[in-house]
Amino acid sequence: MDDHIRFDPEALTLHLLDQRLLPDQEVHVSCRTVQDVIAALQNMVVRGAPAIGVTAAWGCALAAAGAGNGPDWRDRLETGLETLARARPTAVNLRWAVDRLRGLWRARRDADQPALLALFLDEARRMQEEDVAACKALGRFGADCLQDGDSVLTHCNAGALATAGYGTALGVIRAAVEQGKRIRVIADETRPFLQGARLTAWELARDNIPVRVACDNACALLMQKGLVQRVVVGADRIAANGDAANKIGTLGVAILARHFGIPFYVAAPLSTIDPAAANGAAIPIEERPAGEVTHMGGRRICPESVPVYNFAFDVTPAALIAGIITERGVLRPPLGPAIAHILASCREV
Amino acid sequence: MDDHIRFDPEALTLHLLDQRLLPDQEVHVSCRTVQDVIAALQNMVVRGAPAIGVTAAWGCALAAAGAGNGPDWRDRLETGLETLARARPTAVNLRWAVDRLRGLWRARRDADQPALLALFLDEARRMQEEDVAACKALGRFGADCLQDGDSVLTHCNAGALATAGYGTALGVIRAAVEQGKRIRVIADETRPFLQGARLTAWELARDNIPVRVACDNACALLMQKGLVQRVVVGADRIAANGDAANKIGTLGVAILARHFGIPFYVAAPLSTIDPAAANGAAIPIEERPAGEVTHMGGRRICPESVPVYNFAFDVTPAALIAGIITERGVLRPPLGPAIAHILASCREV
Repeated sequence: MDDHIRFDPEALTLHLLDQRLLPDQEVHVSCRTVQDVIAALQNMVVRGAPAIGVTAAWGCALAAAGAGNGPDWRDRLETGLETLARARPTAVNLRWAVDRLRGLWRARRDADQPALLALFLDEARRMQEEDVAACKALGRFGADCLQDGDSVLTHCNAGALATAGYGTALGVIRAAVEQGKRIRVIADETRPFLQGARLTAWELARDNIPVRVACDNACALLMQKGLVQRVVVGADRIAANGDAANKIGTLGVAILARHFGIPFYVAAPLSTIDPAAANGAAIPIEERPAGEVTHMGGRRICPESVPVYNFAFDVTPAALIAGIITERGVLRPPLGPAIAHILASCREV
Repeated sequence: MDDHIRFDPEALTLHLLDQRLLPDQEVHVSCRTVQDVIAALQNMVVRGAPAIGVTAAWGCALAAAGAGNGPDWRDRLETGLETLARARPTAVNLRWAVDRLRGLWRARRDADQPALLALFLDEARRMQEEDVAACKALGRFGADCLQDGDSVLTHCNAGALATAGYGTALGVIRAAVEQGKRIRVIADETRPFLQGARLTAWELARDNIPVRVACDNACALLMQKGLVQRVVVGADRIAANGDAANKIGTLGVAILARHFGIPFYVAAPLSTIDPAAANGAAIPIEERPAGEVTHMGGRRICPESVPVYNFAFDVTPAALIAGIITERGVLRPPLGPAIAHILASCREV
């Protein structure tokens, strides 16, 4: 599963597997403009922080392509990039990706539009490849955190579909399985968007990795029954102190894991770390439309007049995290110094 | 809302509001035999421990009516009662209700079938009235546990629909509102059957009590944000030591409440206490059909081949419970001695 984000350079078109329709239907959405990409991100055709980053990189290329070569092409491109960077607030990989391409542009301010488009296309392809490589590297490090016979609970989908391929949390599981470990997975269904039931279960079943789906609220019972040995989840943004934003419900899983003495790991590429956010309080939490909660399969499940909460993410405090699994190794508590050290060593390279 | 369980003595028919179709449609199911009642309980036309108890009492009357007056009517009635008592395993109120009517029969073994039917009809009506009275009494005691301005989180539906009327957890909220306290309610949607989104929200909206629905997995974030001051839930069976079985997800809410220092109350009539269960390990936990999890509004949400967990209940340890709100007062920790004391004082009366 690494063709769900596929760019056609001839047609200058980005083909995205529509994750809203899985597992029922495998349909692709074609994006020809940066506006198409923004809509796909906001409507959750594609989701998952690293996948959002890679999609945004291609979106930058489409913004460059669509800027034309009139006298104001630079203004139009700048507007396109900034609108794209604001498409969703929580996943830092979105702005990270846009900033990376914008940085490239700043370094080559003399480039005309065709030259810049070529640069952007090149870089977006590189970022897509890097993301798969990062997932495979972090998967290998993370596999050491899992033991043969473990049942691993995961929340939401931090799989191939949430990245350019292979996955973060599911990358760890795939790597452990490739090492010959027998791993079973419990996928929280993850309301309201059901990424666990629809996407994680679908991905793992395709790879013949044993998976069972449970409603989010069954987590405590399954832990109490001894059915969970490890928790591994992804992240949408990690603060400098190790606080980690991820899909709504992750915080609850982390607290329950602590209660039952189960190690709780976060798996994410270093691009997920936002050193500008001192701690979780600095991470913006997206609120999404009420209809995602009030309707299911087109049918209303709440009375008309009743409002809902639909925060899309929550923040797990660093103190509840046993380790952050990255492509450069597993960061261990205290996470703040470990993050500072790894980021410094990256800058030195 | 106290006509959702309505017995027509002329037609010897029990009319049950079909809770599976709320809030969309208000349709009644008519039960003319004990088998109809068993099916309604198993299919969750009616649910909620006290409501199951009252429904079962009317089911006993229908078993007596249907036993005929042939020479084997006693055998047929005995079989009907025992099958009814086994319809669902977790809520102790079901067997409690059947045992109460069976006890009446034992005391009047000489009664012929018409006389016994009259006795059963009388007793079932009394039990229905007692249940409403118990809810109102426990509501008044529980209201003292809530403060003006509190936001109260509840899980599943422990409301009028879960009882003969007024409700247990929602009875506490109704009584507090009747005392003039401003109370807002957060209703966990409560997957997979969505009792919170469908039933609790519907009931409270009808009573103009402010309510907001949240996915189960938002509970930790809402508590972290300071949006929850108290938790009040119902129970399906309470062991002698105070361990309380309730809808799947209650255990997780209790652990999160403890983590965030929020008092967690269980509201239940004394008929919910099972002195024969020493602790939670003795309470059988029902597993229900996978389709409740894998399908939503007729649409499949999990891949075909993937199995699910569908435990319908979990058990919250007594140590996490701030108080059990009953019609005889609020039992405080240590709950084991408090339960023993209240049951002994009931026997003395």
